[in-house]
Amino acid sequence: MDAAFAIPTEARETATSLPMAKDLSHHLNRLTRNRQASSLKELYKYMSYPGMITMAGGIPHPQVFPFETLSASILPVDAFPLDPPRIPAKPKKSLMSWLFPTSQNSSFTIPKYASDPKNPATIQLSTSLQYQAATGPLALPLFLREYVAKVYKPAYADWDVLINVGATDGWAKICSLFLEFGDAILVEEWTYPGAENTFLPYEAERVAIKMDAQGLLPDHLESVLSGWDEEKRGKRRPRVLYTIPTGQNPTGATMMAERKKQIYDIYIIICEDEPYYCLGATYEKSIVAQRLEDAEKEEGAEGNEAFIKALPPSFLAFDTDGRTFSKTSAPGSRLGWITTSPLFIERLTRATEASTQAPSGFATALTTTMLQQWGFEGYIRWLRGIKATYKMRKTWLCDSLADEFDLEFDTHSALFPEKSRTITGYAKRASSAWDEKRGLKGPALITFIPPTEAVGSACGRLGEFFEPGDSADIQVLFAPGWGFDAGGDHAIGGNGFGYYRLAFSIATYEETRSAMKTFSKVLTKFFRL
Amino acid sequence: MDAAFAIPTEARETATSLPMAKDLSHHLNRLTRNRQASSLKELYKYMSYPGMITMAGGIPHPQVFPFETLSASILPVDAFPLDPPRIPAKPKKSLMSWLFPTSQNSSFTIPKYASDPKNPATIQLSTSLQYQAATGPLALPLFLREYVAKVYKPAYADWDVLINVGATDGWAKICSLFLEFGDAILVEEWTYPGAENTFLPYEAERVAIKMDAQGLLPDHLESVLSGWDEEKRGKRRPRVLYTIPTGQNPTGATMMAERKKQIYDIYIIICEDEPYYCLGATYEKSIVAQRLEDAEKEEGAEGNEAFIKALPPSFLAFDTDGRTFSKTSAPGSRLGWITTSPLFIERLTRATEASTQAPSGFATALTTTMLQQWGFEGYIRWLRGIKATYKMRKTWLCDSLADEFDLEFDTHSALFPEKSRTITGYAKRASSAWDEKRGLKGPALITFIPPTEAVGSACGRLGEFFEPGDSADIQVLFAPGWGFDAGGDHAIGGNGFGYYRLAFSIATYEETRSAMKTFSKVLTKFFRL
Repeated sequence: MDAAFAIPTEARETATSLPMAKDLSHHLNRLTRNRQASSLKELYKYMSYPGMITMAGGIPHPQVFPFETLSASILPVDAFPLDPPRIPAKPKKSLMSWLFPTSQNSSFTIPKYASDPKNPATIQLSTSLQYQAATGPLALPLFLREYVAKVYKPAYADWDVLINVGATDGWAKICSLFLEFGDAILVEEWTYPGAENTFLPYEAERVAIKMDAQGLLPDHLESVLSGWDEEKRGKRRPRVLYTIPTGQNPTGATMMAERKKQIYDIYIIICEDEPYYCLGATYEKSIVAQRLEDAEKEEGAEGNEAFIKALPPSFLAFDTDGRTFSKTSAPGSRLGWITTSPLFIERLTRATEASTQAPSGFATALTTTMLQQWGFEGYIRWLRGIKATYKMRKTWLCDSLADEFDLEFDTHSALFPEKSRTITGYAKRASSAWDEKRGLKGPALITFIPPTEAVGSACGRLGEFFEPGDSADIQVLFAPGWGFDAGGDHAIGGNGFGYYRLAFSIATYEETRSAMKTFSKVLTKFFRL
Repeated sequence: MDAAFAIPTEARETATSLPMAKDLSHHLNRLTRNRQASSLKELYKYMSYPGMITMAGGIPHPQVFPFETLSASILPVDAFPLDPPRIPAKPKKSLMSWLFPTSQNSSFTIPKYASDPKNPATIQLSTSLQYQAATGPLALPLFLREYVAKVYKPAYADWDVLINVGATDGWAKICSLFLEFGDAILVEEWTYPGAENTFLPYEAERVAIKMDAQGLLPDHLESVLSGWDEEKRGKRRPRVLYTIPTGQNPTGATMMAERKKQIYDIYIIICEDEPYYCLGATYEKSIVAQRLEDAEKEEGAEGNEAFIKALPPSFLAFDTDGRTFSKTSAPGSRLGWITTSPLFIERLTRATEASTQAPSGFATALTTTMLQQWGFEGYIRWLRGIKATYKMRKTWLCDSLADEFDLEFDTHSALFPEKSRTITGYAKRASSAWDEKRGLKGPALITFIPPTEAVGSACGRLGEFFEPGDSADIQVLFAPGWGFDAGGDHAIGGNGFGYYRLAFSIATYEETRSAMKTFSKVLTKFFRL
């Protein structure tokens, strides 16, 4: 452990009753152990001396930055209602038809030179558009630390955040921290191909862990690891798990507290990919959950509190030895962050200095100013609106399916033999009313896991011979299941053929209804019903 | 060469008389050869079918992007004069004191939904803040291709550009394209430590090539490569050269056409790091150069033409087989691009998909809209203003040195025995007027290469025992030479101790004068004169 590994002693309030992160430096790969801080870094301390004239840094003068001010018009935090109607009131073409009529956009302007440049919360273009430390402007981590502390509630004291240029970049940096050529890596049996594209070039062997509707099965994970014979396999035991705990991509599975606890107890580095963490549903149906769901529909501080309370604990909340990463990102702006132990933060900072450096100053300046204008409570209200919007869209899809198929809730399903329910859809025969007594009516056309709000998708089975080519002909496009195959034995979903991921996040109400009508027609025709 | 290596057949006008790029795929490393396109990529073609309802992509609806509009106030293209006065007319504190009084800022607003979304030049937030292809929005490459074609004039037909999140990111991606652990890499004997931080963790052996005031010495490069014994060295012959041809960091050396031609003729992959390409001076003093310099001071199309004509040819202009990269970046916005052959563009695109993805939509939207508003000619005028500003700042530094030291132009210097001139400074004795006949007056206090406008720095020798600690005490900060040492034998600069890089890009006129006054006092005291 050389000097470059030293942890910056930046003052930050931490809950001193919590344990510190454990030293996991033995898991770092050769590339990462080799990283050094810049040889000129020691100059930085002289730069802030009062009266110092610096001719040390070859950096442009802010006067030559062409941008004098940046302004943005942003939606109000309550732009999206907490309890939108089941069917859009006036199904207009306008995308804003369910906005509160009283909602007003607000705006802000970022100057080149702010009046208070010494304040760490200050955002000004002369700083944001200048070269910056890889850790970015102080103002954004300031906000994120409050957000992580209050929402993710890490269970160890010395965690920190490091901003990055989005979830894929964060994951690429994590892979470059641990992976050696030929390593094995643990993934869910169906997983996000974008994440695989990052580690597969390392000739990484995917070790697929079986799932149910709550995601990873701890028993299978345990048996894979305990049965790992390094000599026989010709490679070391996998040390990294890539998982999407909330609204898993593609299955839509969401892990609850108990499941996370079971997985956490198995000794591995858990990398949580959590873009949807705050947008997920409370899956467990209980009186407490129902009360929280009702409370979430109310405006104000109590509603905000209910929203946070309803979140399942993050892996960070179990983490007493810093074995986890969590990340999220603002949509499309290529800005996200990693929360982890000081050791990994420091090594990731070195990797960031040698690659992306700080995220774009345009992205950090605009996003931070917006967050500051909204404040913590405002941002929580914003997230609640988005969550309610996804819930509304999920309802559009489920209602459309119910109108086009006769649905039955299965207690014993081939897809999920235990622990969770699936829904099977049959061809509509006479009436569209639900009739519990009608029983089986011909072959099952579709089977699916009830989607959560989060994932923006439902993953279902359409029948083994329904090929994607057909779906293009009929002007509705689903993502084929085989594209998400992690290459192992499957507990669910067979070989992926005949399985599709349906995303409800982008289609309009009319499009969703029209798509499900077409879907039902094509299936009925295919099965010659 | 599998299907993933196929080159996209996107229509682009190319000069058909030029040769095509040579296939250099045998230089790609193991990681890069392993990269595959996303398994779901074939779905993209269905998405643009007329009437297609897509439920394939799990992407958020633009309605939930909080940004409704972005606006910017930008400087006019002629904000900086082409021939500023030698001494600022009114040395005010205001940073804008030499702006044309008639110059006016302009502004633009980017809407969430533009009226012409099908036009490839359209920028709208619903697209910019959405997930994008790794190649980014169409509009920016459209502008860059025109710019590269007209300014860099590549000498092969099928070059293309790929945007990235800044020069360090571009260089990191290039390293990850070619380097295996333990490879040797060619660098200038003094080089940019930020670039080294990217390749040193690969346990890369730096092979330092000797320099003069025009940069790399082709003879030394040639002899290193021809004398490379793979068996004896225990590693393969280096295949990649990292070079900063214009305003070399830290020496300030700028390569002219003849030198580039000599280096190009040696068979290696040349990675040009060219942030200053358009801001460099025409070094060679000739009647033609003088005429161009005069013409550059004039406004209008002829001045723009003279500016482009005065640029030394890029390595791209010699490149008949695609062995080069060129890159540049907009200051601080973390946005740059690589120009190279279709093969490398394709592999770099795969690497980008698995790491950074497209640069931030905030950066591309704002930068592209600004460039579109300025147009090609306007952007050239903007660059000319920046170039004139750096020249003005260089003059501040040189005039300050001339006022504090007695300077002599050396024809035979230990620093640069041939081909270039250095300047030696002696303690000022009686008068501040330049007197060619006064000859040697005590020990030489400083020696330096006349800086070019580009680099924003002069690299000089202060005497072997002048330590950086002293410079902090005296409130002037220079970058110490040893920080830039590439670890080989040196043609210039000894071991780097006593050598410093002085940057003229950020200090004000008053600060520059004050810094040189302090500098002279400290040296005089140190040498007990």
